[in-house]
Amino acid sequence: MSEQKLPKNIGVILFPGFQLLDICGPLDVLNLLAYSHTLNLSIIAASLSPVSTSHAQSVAANSNFSQSIVPTHTFATAPDDLEVLIIPGGFGSRKEENIEGVVEFVRGYYPKLKWCLTVCTGSAILAKSGVLDGRRATSNKKAFAWVKEQNVDVEWVPKARWVVDGNIWTSSGISAGIDLIFAWVGEVFGEDVATFVADSSEYERNTDSGADRFAERWGAV
Amino acid sequence: MSEQKLPKNIGVILFPGFQLLDICGPLDVLNLLAYSHTLNLSIIAASLSPVSTSHAQSVAANSNFSQSIVPTHTFATAPDDLEVLIIPGGFGSRKEENIEGVVEFVRGYYPKLKWCLTVCTGSAILAKSGVLDGRRATSNKKAFAWVKEQNVDVEWVPKARWVVDGNIWTSSGISAGIDLIFAWVGEVFGEDVATFVADSSEYERNTDSGADRFAERWGAV
Repeated sequence: MSEQKLPKNIGVILFPGFQLLDICGPLDVLNLLAYSHTLNLSIIAASLSPVSTSHAQSVAANSNFSQSIVPTHTFATAPDDLEVLIIPGGFGSRKEENIEGVVEFVRGYYPKLKWCLTVCTGSAILAKSGVLDGRRATSNKKAFAWVKEQNVDVEWVPKARWVVDGNIWTSSGISAGIDLIFAWVGEVFGEDVATFVADSSEYERNTDSGADRFAERWGAV
Repeated sequence: MSEQKLPKNIGVILFPGFQLLDICGPLDVLNLLAYSHTLNLSIIAASLSPVSTSHAQSVAANSNFSQSIVPTHTFATAPDDLEVLIIPGGFGSRKEENIEGVVEFVRGYYPKLKWCLTVCTGSAILAKSGVLDGRRATSNKKAFAWVKEQNVDVEWVPKARWVVDGNIWTSSGISAGIDLIFAWVGEVFGEDVATFVADSSEYERNTDSGADRFAERWGAV
């Protein structure tokens, strides 16, 4: 892909109870890529208020342990030239009030995108939008039974680190998003670029999309 | 370690130009641990304003690509019962104005801590505080020459994924912080707990602290 055709405008969605690494894993890879390639990031949420990893259902073990990230756009003000959209998962996605507006935004925006990437149960959100109907996709293996219930018209792949179907890249749980983004960077920007960024991050990639011992570990197969 | 002796109060430091994954890698492991064990998080910075991964020196390739995390405490208001402090690295740490107050805070707080963990060039900040004098430590391998210059009284270990010296755990670059935190969780909370959390995150750990191909890759040895 020639330099001028490379994607520049990346969007990510946040909602209360998102899983931190689902977003920060892929974004930090792109943070490093942004030193050598022009990239613009839009962080999109229901409002411009900071979005917390915490939500009503996530309080456990009496812990007070959460982080908040600041959005740059709302669903109403998101730029209309995003080429890539990244959707995280997280326990928050299981409660409709947390993802209010997310499913509608994804459904409406998808036709404009060149790529849509999901991490963990982010694929359940994409499935709810109908975009995954008839497509192959994967998701978090510990949550796989719940994910499948969200849309039975998706061809859910139980054993895969990530799955590519057309312009939709879905990954398995949490950390798998880092391998997903490196695979995507390798495909779009070149494997040499992906290797340089991974080495810069001192990350040992899992490069086989079919290798997934967590499918057995969590009973998804 | 008995349940009642397990650490509960974790602090992390943010400064402009911190590396996102240095903090979010370890924190998301602790986010999962917080479901089964009581943990409290303090996010500490110079002020309560959101802290950006971006800073003056990091603008590159015309990119507009950054994220901001919201602190919960300032250096002045940090709780005095933190048991664990995590210090990230990042390009921002190379500019004194970005880490103003950080070195002093770390120097003053260290005697109260049970553990101090650093990721990437976070060890350079700890080295500047004098806490690492005469101790073994590692750091980001791409930045290793610069790190060594920050304090020649530290016994810098060029080839290591992470290094433990007493209650100080220092890791190599960026992604190595995830392996560091899993090793620390394994040591303190038990290897069964670390394995459960890693499997929940679908993370393939690097468990050998001495295995470090990035030392050769970036000329640190």
